[in-house]
Amino acid sequence: MLGEDLVDLCEEPMAEVEAIPFTPGAIFGSCRRRLKSDADFERLFQVIDAHDIGYFFYNGGNDSMETAHAVATRAAALGLPLRVIGIPKTVDNDLVGTDHCPGFGSSAKYTAIAVLETMRDLQSMAADSTQVFILESMGRHAGWLAAASALASYREPGIPHLILLPEVPFVEEKFLSAVDDTLRKHGFCTIVAAEALKGPDGQFVSTAGYGDAFGNVQLGKVGLHLERCIRSQLDRRVHTALPDYLQRSSRHIASYTDFCEAQEVGRKAVRLATEGHTDCMVSIDRVSHVPYVVRYDAVPLEMVAGKTKVLPAEFILEGDGFHVTEALRAYVAPLIRGEAPNLWMEGLPRYAHLSGRRVPCKLDAFET
Amino acid sequence: MLGEDLVDLCEEPMAEVEAIPFTPGAIFGSCRRRLKSDADFERLFQVIDAHDIGYFFYNGGNDSMETAHAVATRAAALGLPLRVIGIPKTVDNDLVGTDHCPGFGSSAKYTAIAVLETMRDLQSMAADSTQVFILESMGRHAGWLAAASALASYREPGIPHLILLPEVPFVEEKFLSAVDDTLRKHGFCTIVAAEALKGPDGQFVSTAGYGDAFGNVQLGKVGLHLERCIRSQLDRRVHTALPDYLQRSSRHIASYTDFCEAQEVGRKAVRLATEGHTDCMVSIDRVSHVPYVVRYDAVPLEMVAGKTKVLPAEFILEGDGFHVTEALRAYVAPLIRGEAPNLWMEGLPRYAHLSGRRVPCKLDAFET
Repeated sequence: MLGEDLVDLCEEPMAEVEAIPFTPGAIFGSCRRRLKSDADFERLFQVIDAHDIGYFFYNGGNDSMETAHAVATRAAALGLPLRVIGIPKTVDNDLVGTDHCPGFGSSAKYTAIAVLETMRDLQSMAADSTQVFILESMGRHAGWLAAASALASYREPGIPHLILLPEVPFVEEKFLSAVDDTLRKHGFCTIVAAEALKGPDGQFVSTAGYGDAFGNVQLGKVGLHLERCIRSQLDRRVHTALPDYLQRSSRHIASYTDFCEAQEVGRKAVRLATEGHTDCMVSIDRVSHVPYVVRYDAVPLEMVAGKTKVLPAEFILEGDGFHVTEALRAYVAPLIRGEAPNLWMEGLPRYAHLSGRRVPCKLDAFET
Repeated sequence: MLGEDLVDLCEEPMAEVEAIPFTPGAIFGSCRRRLKSDADFERLFQVIDAHDIGYFFYNGGNDSMETAHAVATRAAALGLPLRVIGIPKTVDNDLVGTDHCPGFGSSAKYTAIAVLETMRDLQSMAADSTQVFILESMGRHAGWLAAASALASYREPGIPHLILLPEVPFVEEKFLSAVDDTLRKHGFCTIVAAEALKGPDGQFVSTAGYGDAFGNVQLGKVGLHLERCIRSQLDRRVHTALPDYLQRSSRHIASYTDFCEAQEVGRKAVRLATEGHTDCMVSIDRVSHVPYVVRYDAVPLEMVAGKTKVLPAEFILEGDGFHVTEALRAYVAPLIRGEAPNLWMEGLPRYAHLSGRRVPCKLDAFET
């Protein structure tokens, strides 16, 4: 927006616009800039004014909702007629004010399937090769995705054997003892570890050593830390998978429920804006688990901005902290149901390609 | 076999037997023991005799074909009527005597799709977040899987930007300079790196520090080595994905061509055995690229055992060594075509579950 870098979808071929729901990534790009200086906001409203923009839809997680709220507040203070609607989207599923976030169901599905597939591979080999497999899961602040891997147990009871959640302080001896027990009982051990795992001191077990514009530390490689522990302390062969962006961009295995809901929150955002609402986020409210029924509503951005929804205690099984409850499974199960359609061509997915044309600029360039 | 641990598929429910082609991993387990002592062979032939086994089908890569050849040779020397047939199967695709190996097409498809999906994610973020993405690829001795990622370019020209093959000595300065050039030109850089990458001295760039029973060094983590290089030398934000077993066990995204061929090599093995052949491996011979036509034949195990097929020079583009030729693309393209069917239930794949029953033992236990 600050760069006056605007796309007019009405100018793009309809076949490409229609391919957007089949395409991973953010088709208009993504942004991690924290809007705070007066100069930033002044520029933003200049661009909005120059192009006669009446609606501002902002799609993302906690930080994005904070930004949207700031835009709405400043616009209102200036008496601008701008309507600002937040559209939730984060695989981390850690936004408050909504039952769940678009993106989460598909990443949860990816994670559960990854556990099922690699578990069969591991089981094949455990007699005289690798016996421990660690899958490192995304989730910057909360263990939603790691916890969702427990859905694998619907098809392979007890799998994954251990889930390491950021909500449960990590104690190495307790962990190694649980791995050892599992190996004695089952001959192999499948572990899902959240990247944001913290020790009893509240410090991350593993970080990449740098942060982003919002002060979030870049996490990662906790799986390799655990691999080293197991190899050195238990002398077992360990493999670690670090899916990284694959966990959130594997569009080919998206959940149909998620695919539909992601489009529905967009429609709801348009309806809210045209009905005159502003400074709110679309929420998904769950009416019932079985049958799975949701309705779409709005929640003030102020209630959402900058807050984090961690796993509630009722979703973590009492005891060693390495397992989740049936309540968690019942919560996630409907979100992974169904397989979203793909556009396949010659064995590869076909994605949207926009023309690269931009709306002609009306303002001078802005030094970002 | 040495443990007299035998399954009779006729005793298993037909629905489960029919689900085996939809199931990742090795349904009867896998084995990395090198048969060499006379005691091992004596035991093997005792088990074969006790259960009146006439056919021995062995499924795997180079090391497995070496084992199959040894069994056939010893059986013939002893005048046993055993017929031994090797069935090729390795995502590494490095068996000689066959155009390609079952498993490779599906892993190649996985790799190309992983590049496409993460590339869109990276492209979204590159303006002010991560700019380099590294995908680490399996391939113990040869760069087939890493090279296959070049199929992504059919949908996104020029992607991946750089492919690091074990057949091309890795020179850090040359690599960093290519990354830097790509970033200047495109604003982001997608890299696929083979785990078996070697320096000009012929040593692996990165190893996990332990080996297997065949003396193969356990590879891995080369992606993290490259990530550290780029961060420290170019000061760019880098993400690395290490799919590990996901690259070979992601059954949900198997190639239909591969799915059909894997079953066809099994049928051919049975035909060869019942026609009286022994000490041979089923081969897939390519008759033509377009249309894609193959025929199934047999090749003596002696010609296959212990040999490795690396990428031929005509598949590596002359120049910097970071790209492959159209000939490589034409070779791999038909192998990833089509999507193999899955059995889905409630958003998760359904796999075969055998009963766990075993054929009753007739011999004393064997100390393995």
